[in-house]
Amino acid sequence: MKGISFNTWAYSSFPVWVPSYPLEEVIRRLASFGYDAIEIGCASPHAWPAALTPERRKDILQLLRKERLAVSSMLPAPGGGPGNNPSSPVVEERALTVEHYKDILRLAHDWECPTVIYLPGWAVFGTSQSDAWSHSLEALTGLAPYAKELGITLVVEPTPTDSNLVDSADDALMLAEQSGQDNVKVMFDTFHALYRNEVASDYVYRMGDKLHHIHLADSDRLPPGMGRCDMEAVLKALKETGYSGYLTAEVGFDKRAGEPDWYAKETIAYLQSVLKKHDWR
Amino acid sequence: MKGISFNTWAYSSFPVWVPSYPLEEVIRRLASFGYDAIEIGCASPHAWPAALTPERRKDILQLLRKERLAVSSMLPAPGGGPGNNPSSPVVEERALTVEHYKDILRLAHDWECPTVIYLPGWAVFGTSQSDAWSHSLEALTGLAPYAKELGITLVVEPTPTDSNLVDSADDALMLAEQSGQDNVKVMFDTFHALYRNEVASDYVYRMGDKLHHIHLADSDRLPPGMGRCDMEAVLKALKETGYSGYLTAEVGFDKRAGEPDWYAKETIAYLQSVLKKHDWR
Amino acid sequence: MKGISFNTWAYSSFPVWVPSYPLEEVIRRLASFGYDAIEIGCASPHAWPAALTPERRKDILQLLRKERLAVSSMLPAPGGGPGNNPSSPVVEERALTVEHYKDILRLAHDWECPTVIYLPGWAVFGTSQSDAWSHSLEALTGLAPYAKELGITLVVEPTPTDSNLVDSADDALMLAEQSGQDNVKVMFDTFHALYRNEVASDYVYRMGDKLHHIHLADSDRLPPGMGRCDMEAVLKALKETGYSGYLTAEVGFDKRAGEPDWYAKETIAYLQSVLKKHDWR
Amino acid sequence: MKGISFNTWAYSSFPVWVPSYPLEEVIRRLASFGYDAIEIGCASPHAWPAALTPERRKDILQLLRKERLAVSSMLPAPGGGPGNNPSSPVVEERALTVEHYKDILRLAHDWECPTVIYLPGWAVFGTSQSDAWSHSLEALTGLAPYAKELGITLVVEPTPTDSNLVDSADDALMLAEQSGQDNVKVMFDTFHALYRNEVASDYVYRMGDKLHHIHLADSDRLPPGMGRCDMEAVLKALKETGYSGYLTAEVGFDKRAGEPDWYAKETIAYLQSVLKKHDWR
Repeated sequence: MKGISFNTWAYSSFPVWVPSYPLEEVIRRLASFGYDAIEIGCASPHAWPAALTPERRKDILQLLRKERLAVSSMLPAPGGGPGNNPSSPVVEERALTVEHYKDILRLAHDWECPTVIYLPGWAVFGTSQSDAWSHSLEALTGLAPYAKELGITLVVEPTPTDSNLVDSADDALMLAEQSGQDNVKVMFDTFHALYRNEVASDYVYRMGDKLHHIHLADSDRLPPGMGRCDMEAVLKALKETGYSGYLTAEVGFDKRAGEPDWYAKETIAYLQSVLKKHDWR
Repeated sequence: MKGISFNTWAYSSFPVWVPSYPLEEVIRRLASFGYDAIEIGCASPHAWPAALTPERRKDILQLLRKERLAVSSMLPAPGGGPGNNPSSPVVEERALTVEHYKDILRLAHDWECPTVIYLPGWAVFGTSQSDAWSHSLEALTGLAPYAKELGITLVVEPTPTDSNLVDSADDALMLAEQSGQDNVKVMFDTFHALYRNEVASDYVYRMGDKLHHIHLADSDRLPPGMGRCDMEAVLKALKETGYSGYLTAEVGFDKRAGEPDWYAKETIAYLQSVLKKHDWR
Repeated sequence: MKGISFNTWAYSSFPVWVPSYPLEEVIRRLASFGYDAIEIGCASPHAWPAALTPERRKDILQLLRKERLAVSSMLPAPGGGPGNNPSSPVVEERALTVEHYKDILRLAHDWECPTVIYLPGWAVFGTSQSDAWSHSLEALTGLAPYAKELGITLVVEPTPTDSNLVDSADDALMLAEQSGQDNVKVMFDTFHALYRNEVASDYVYRMGDKLHHIHLADSDRLPPGMGRCDMEAVLKALKETGYSGYLTAEVGFDKRAGEPDWYAKETIAYLQSVLKKHDWR
Repeated sequence: MKGISFNTWAYSSFPVWVPSYPLEEVIRRLASFGYDAIEIGCASPHAWPAALTPERRKDILQLLRKERLAVSSMLPAPGGGPGNNPSSPVVEERALTVEHYKDILRLAHDWECPTVIYLPGWAVFGTSQSDAWSHSLEALTGLAPYAKELGITLVVEPTPTDSNLVDSADDALMLAEQSGQDNVKVMFDTFHALYRNEVASDYVYRMGDKLHHIHLADSDRLPPGMGRCDMEAVLKALKETGYSGYLTAEVGFDKRAGEPDWYAKETIAYLQSVLKKHDWR
């Protein structure tokens, strides 16, 4: 595995407005806790592409290098004003969503980030699942070559907790396969697997060599090891299947009452202790 | 009072992705339940300005007229990818937020909507409250003349549940007053007053003739009358102070499990029964 | 609509062992409560096909006629010893499942029952969803002509609460369509729609003229009208879309503490009152 | 004691459909966790007798030997479609139940399993307890010689949580004694003792040298040591009374949300630590 990464939602204004920290502050804090990498969500005040001038992008890159923090991955904020739903029945929304993904891919390239998460969207009332699926597949198929030129892998994530389209490991695998492009892979989030009451380690074996990225989060978006997920079994499965990506935690962003630093520190302490116990690193 | 209105968040993809309905469907449903007006949140798939072509804007207006549904008010979706935080420390985000409000004001004008809600934002870590306040005041002061030309009133809303800047009735009154412009008024949401454990009807008397709009929502974002808020006292206060705006409910949007129609139908049944009981209409 | 029906699970030894009543007792009780029909689950001590001699089948039919109770529908008990999973990786289990459905179809014919529910099964670990889907489609495609000869319609039910294969309205529609046979339709259970946090009345509109049967159950398998489901909206949608099947309640069978008569009586009282209020019958 | 065993329900499609694993997978996993034995429930996709060809039975036996895992015990799945209630008022169901037990006894013999659990059933409404008891005793008395020829012991289990016939230690002892055959013994499940608010270790002393098998499960079907049962007292009583059977855990099968591996691993870790602490092995 490449190292341990932490997702920025808990530090940004999405989806809850506060607490919220400037990106520079988040980079310095995560580095100080011992993280190898950061997963940057494209929301204000961190990384809404149109709000980032070329100068600021360069400054951020320099800070990342100085703090020896890699950008493991990036992703859009779904469901806010713009929606960013590639399965929307509104053709203009779909077109804007594709443009937004291109903005994110360029930003990822600027920050030497190798992986961008693709959220397949959801079926709005009146749209059949097959039409929604087709819309999403079309968007993904169009984006993949653009990503490839920039050296970026797109990873499809099932999000059953929030959506109604790509719900399972197999749904994600099927969408990726139908795209027919080799820089499209899959990922999953243990929290979403728990929502379906499925066994998270089973997902690792099911996705096998298509598994390019992972979100670790326990029940209630708690730090790994604090809920009902058998997180050691997930890590063992990753080891056994030869997973070579980052261990990325996406936790603590769902309520204002959470203190982001607590989530970040508990997460890395737990992950490091398990990896050390089994000598898995 | 002008009539009863219902906010669209519960029917849109903000903040939870599903259930989500096309705007046309929402207009027809609310009209069929007996509503006089609709409050349109500017989120997909309903009303993200850049996704609405001139033709579609006209079609929506015609449908509104056919269904005899007025647009009581409009507002942006805060905290998604773009943030829309006029108090942000990021100058580019502030500029984009002002542009977004202008887009909304033009869209409101297209749909003959007289009122746009102004959400003052929140202080990001490292920004002092006085700086955040200044940023927000500057944005508001710049927007008011633009709104005035289009015949639109801006109403400042305190949002303590989600933010940390304009938390109380007095905060909102102060910001409106400091703008120095007569098309800037205030509003409040009973749900936010409950969050501070304040008495909602007191807000009506405190805001008095500056109160231009209101959000009715009971505890847990339930329909009015189903929670711990003394909603009859609020309606009585509105009657006594001569409130002449819409009664707008903003409920049921905070969790996926909510069925929007249930919220809309329970809300209008309750409000009509109270108004009828006291012959307040 | 054809009338009101009640499912027998709550009175049988499946899935909880007690309370359990002989089928004759259940028929007499449901008729005495005013039901038009009964949905018979094929579990002991009621209707395990191999335990029903020709004489007993005739006696039951005579009793049904005497009590003027139609058999609205029948279905197998999934997940017990035999499994009855048409998507199983074990070829012998799949073959036995098909034989079991044929037994049920013949029993349905003996009792003049026009509709048999098809439960598509679930993917066992190590079986991909596409393989599981293919297995289930093959079973369904083989059964449909057999059912047709007996004058029976098969209805595909999505069961997301318990399974991982046919989870949504669209999944059921797709499986039915892929079977390519006109006596294969769909149904849904409001309880399962709630599990996905979807809006039950939306399912009625989505399934439209393919909707041949329905299970009414409120949250926690409560009688209709006692939970968080907007049951009036479901009934209204059925009326608007011209649904011509039975209103069948499948409630109160998930825990030993439930008293079956209470569920049956509360259910019919509620449904009759709503139908009468709107003059929908 | 002979060693530690784990019951397969949590890995099968009974009583909840998923998660579900092929039997071969379960054998390999339990062996890898350090188990000495497996208790195989006769449900799909594992061990429904009619779905197991002679070849597959041999393959399973070879795998068991290769993984050095003994089959401690077997049992039927009660309450599914066939019912398997030896106390049923339906004579055909009783006959099928006896046949099913014979199928299980032959399968147990094929897999070198020395013990089969006898579940005495439950009284259906309209059947007196004395009639139900007589039915069950007749079935047991008929089965015992058949089991004896195959070298198998039948153990009567009280199941008050689910049934209403053999509820206590003394009920089980009485039924076994009335059978008048020396290969009929008794067992109990700590979970069922807790349901009656009885002291589990008292059952060990009460059953004494008739106690041939045991199910360890804490409150809420949690792994031993995680609930309100004084499990160390149970183990101490087993040691003192010279119990020579397996310690078999039957846990985690009652809800979809459970991860079987977690239950299996927590169980063996706890049991090994207690045995080691007291040097009881």
